[in-house]
Amino acid sequence: IAHDQGKRARRLLKAMHPAKVASLLETLTPQQRIAAWHQVDARTEPKVLAHLSAAMRAQLARDLEVDAPPSDSALSTADSPIDDAPETQLHLVLDALDQGKLKRISRLFSKLHPARIAGLLESLPATERAAAWDMVEGERTSKVLRHLHQEVRRRLATEMDLEHLVEAARGLEADDLVDLIQDLPVATGRQILEAMDRRERERLQSMLSYPEDSAGGLMNMDQIAVRANIKIGTLLRYLRLREDLPSNTDKFFVIDRKHHYQGILRTRRVLTARPETMVSDLMETDFEPVLADQPSDAVARRFEEQDLSSAPVVDADGRLLGRITIDDVVDVIREQAAHAMMGMAGLDEETDMFAPVLASSRRRAVWLGINLITAFLAAWVIGLFEGTLQQVVALAVLMPIVASMGGIAGSQTLTLVIRGLATGQLAGGNTRILLLKEAGIGLLNGLLWALVVAALAILWFGNWAIGGIIAVAILLNLLCAAVAGVAIPLLMRRLGIDPALAGSVVLTTVTDIVGFFAFLGLATLILL
Amino acid sequence: IAHDQGKRARRLLKAMHPAKVASLLETLTPQQRIAAWHQVDARTEPKVLAHLSAAMRAQLARDLEVDAPPSDSALSTADSPIDDAPETQLHLVLDALDQGKLKRISRLFSKLHPARIAGLLESLPATERAAAWDMVEGERTSKVLRHLHQEVRRRLATEMDLEHLVEAARGLEADDLVDLIQDLPVATGRQILEAMDRRERERLQSMLSYPEDSAGGLMNMDQIAVRANIKIGTLLRYLRLREDLPSNTDKFFVIDRKHHYQGILRTRRVLTARPETMVSDLMETDFEPVLADQPSDAVARRFEEQDLSSAPVVDADGRLLGRITIDDVVDVIREQAAHAMMGMAGLDEETDMFAPVLASSRRRAVWLGINLITAFLAAWVIGLFEGTLQQVVALAVLMPIVASMGGIAGSQTLTLVIRGLATGQLAGGNTRILLLKEAGIGLLNGLLWALVVAALAILWFGNWAIGGIIAVAILLNLLCAAVAGVAIPLLMRRLGIDPALAGSVVLTTVTDIVGFFAFLGLATLILL
Repeated sequence: IAHDQGKRARRLLKAMHPAKVASLLETLTPQQRIAAWHQVDARTEPKVLAHLSAAMRAQLARDLEVDAPPSDSALSTADSPIDDAPETQLHLVLDALDQGKLKRISRLFSKLHPARIAGLLESLPATERAAAWDMVEGERTSKVLRHLHQEVRRRLATEMDLEHLVEAARGLEADDLVDLIQDLPVATGRQILEAMDRRERERLQSMLSYPEDSAGGLMNMDQIAVRANIKIGTLLRYLRLREDLPSNTDKFFVIDRKHHYQGILRTRRVLTARPETMVSDLMETDFEPVLADQPSDAVARRFEEQDLSSAPVVDADGRLLGRITIDDVVDVIREQAAHAMMGMAGLDEETDMFAPVLASSRRRAVWLGINLITAFLAAWVIGLFEGTLQQVVALAVLMPIVASMGGIAGSQTLTLVIRGLATGQLAGGNTRILLLKEAGIGLLNGLLWALVVAALAILWFGNWAIGGIIAVAILLNLLCAAVAGVAIPLLMRRLGIDPALAGSVVLTTVTDIVGFFAFLGLATLILL
Repeated sequence: IAHDQGKRARRLLKAMHPAKVASLLETLTPQQRIAAWHQVDARTEPKVLAHLSAAMRAQLARDLEVDAPPSDSALSTADSPIDDAPETQLHLVLDALDQGKLKRISRLFSKLHPARIAGLLESLPATERAAAWDMVEGERTSKVLRHLHQEVRRRLATEMDLEHLVEAARGLEADDLVDLIQDLPVATGRQILEAMDRRERERLQSMLSYPEDSAGGLMNMDQIAVRANIKIGTLLRYLRLREDLPSNTDKFFVIDRKHHYQGILRTRRVLTARPETMVSDLMETDFEPVLADQPSDAVARRFEEQDLSSAPVVDADGRLLGRITIDDVVDVIREQAAHAMMGMAGLDEETDMFAPVLASSRRRAVWLGINLITAFLAAWVIGLFEGTLQQVVALAVLMPIVASMGGIAGSQTLTLVIRGLATGQLAGGNTRILLLKEAGIGLLNGLLWALVVAALAILWFGNWAIGGIIAVAILLNLLCAAVAGVAIPLLMRRLGIDPALAGSVVLTTVTDIVGFFAFLGLATLILL
């Protein structure tokens, strides 16, 4: 028995007869025995117990008993809506891992939604995560995999043996499986594809040919297509043969003989129609389909604007390929939001919160390195005025204030512009107007804070000249921050760089340099 | 005719007979005439023209003609999927406003989705926005209002006359109307409520009693409730009487005689069931309803995790109150994301990009003022070491590097923690592990960049002591940044402050102070 591979041991034990498991348990050392016992399925437990010697039964039953009451009470509270908080569940899992009570985790997991299990797994550090992952039951493995973020998913999936991974892959919807394959090493992805039957493989391969962030990469192929010249009654008879429909089926798609998209038929129309009505009388032909190569953020915007639940995807010839559903669009929206937020700090939105220290350090070092260059640029500007600083040391004390005020004002403008670009509300036509407005704000706030800072500086150092110099420098820097806050993201966008990613680094470089240069330069001219 | 109130003039002209409009037009000055002509409805145009004198007809027809070809071609390209970009449409609107061709805007708007019109309106500065808003046709006013952001909506709504506003309110779904009323001044809101009939008013008032960010504030009351003891055939007959169902109806809700929620019945079950099946055989009783006082972000998380399209809302006694649909949840998700991003720069996510300069300046001044306090704190720390700086001016050149590296490293940790808190993946149990991991990253990156910066400093100033001092200061500051990045948001959360809002200000204050203090303090100890 490979004790480090919980999942494999578990399946081995499942396949064995309870009596055989019992005799196996008796041959092990007490420690190994407890470990193996943890892998025994809850349903076969009593059977195995019956085959064990009395002493051993007492020992293991004790483990079970000590285990049972707290976990039961914990689970019953977890069932009530109040304690359904992820925090409580996380505590349960961590406690259980801490005490080696793996059975308790398996019981908790069996009551939770796969998405919640995925969330819990992502909340765990690597070792604990692997242990808890072993406790996810066979059929649910695939569903939990689907809800994990890229980095965690890749790591857990590559640690699974291929046979088991293929099994999990079979449980996934086509679009989620495509996602998974794109995350895995190429060789593993190919092996999974080869394990599928031919029709499924061809379908997957055609879906894999679209980029992940296009409509084709989002779509699924579980749509229901109907012909325009049938009666609603006929459609209902067909639907009854199917027994169930894919989730998020709020519309059927109407196609012609050559599979060209012709329109939509809403399920609510079907529900309220008389059986003798024709599909062609109820279908809506003005619903525009999504093109497979449309970028996914445009798709998300349309779903959001038009409150859609699903939309048909067609190829360039208008042939129906599949459909996009709102649940995948919600994922896109969440990812965009995470990308915008994490990107500003130079982080990847798919990052594993508990990635190994070394890997995380390496990734973050890049960002720190970029920032170091900009910090040295600012230092170089200060270095130009070493002589001035030596004579008036008060300048060294006050100079960070000038740079900081510019940085804050600029980042406000920058954030507004980045958001305007993301929502499409900022385009060629109104950027000039926005620039004027931001410059106006920079002027007003520049005047206000220039006066405040000047007053404070004069109070502090009793020097009117320094007060005047810092006032002018702050006003200049806030004006410049407003212009840079509008211009930098627009320029980056034109150059094809994501402004959410690099915008703030470039902006603070500008405001630092302008701030230090204006303040120290003016001081050199006036004070020396 | 009130020439400054386009909407009113428009409705006046609409109510008049074409002949009367024509004679009215003839009494006006040429300039007034063009303005009034712009308000004439497209459908009545030919009729009015027929009643005009030949000279006048020629003049106005010229306006129409010059207007027509470019707008038509522009519109035909706007219809094709490629030029459907918001940028192109914005250009069209701005050009039209520029040339005073209001008719062109009205024609463009009539072809666009209300959400897109709302987006275009938000892309316009105040004066242009008011002019374009006048061009939104009667029935669509309410739909556009629903898609506007709070600040813009409030301004446009308060500028409308009450009669017209009530008319628009009647066109809104209950949940959107509740939103609108919450945004308006109390008196206006009450006037709208009073204009509704009694049943509607009572419904709205019960919805208004829930906070905006709770499940009750999100819900609508358009659910379809059924009883468990009827046949599917009966249900279908009832549905056929209704002719249409509310959008996003993917499930019906099963209730008992006292209106207590009992379970859900999916529409796809109804579509695939035989007519003689009972509702009780198909309903799912394990679908947990949403409590009306649940916070909206918990609702959004559940929709996302479980891929829901709609969910029932119940009160504390389990009585069915209404339902929440995915389109409103998508809005919540977008708002959360905008809040997280804009909040970091001290901006409100409902801000109007083109708010008047004075109002924007005032709001942003608060944030700048808060930051000024932290900047003065840092300056005060530097001031403690004035003597040291006077003797070794190189310290003044290098000190911003120490502070900046700490700020960047800390903001990476901070962003990760804020996101972990938002997703619920960071809770009591795993914060210690994360703290250790972040400290480890701080140590590794601190060592790396301490060496790099030390080497560069030695090269620059040829002083080994300064190199050693800056290395130790950077290492200390990065370690401290890691600890502060984890501790600050956790502490704020416990104090009930939103970490996304104030986290970065507090963090940079800490890293600035620690950075300057460590660097200048060490220098004072060693160099003097």
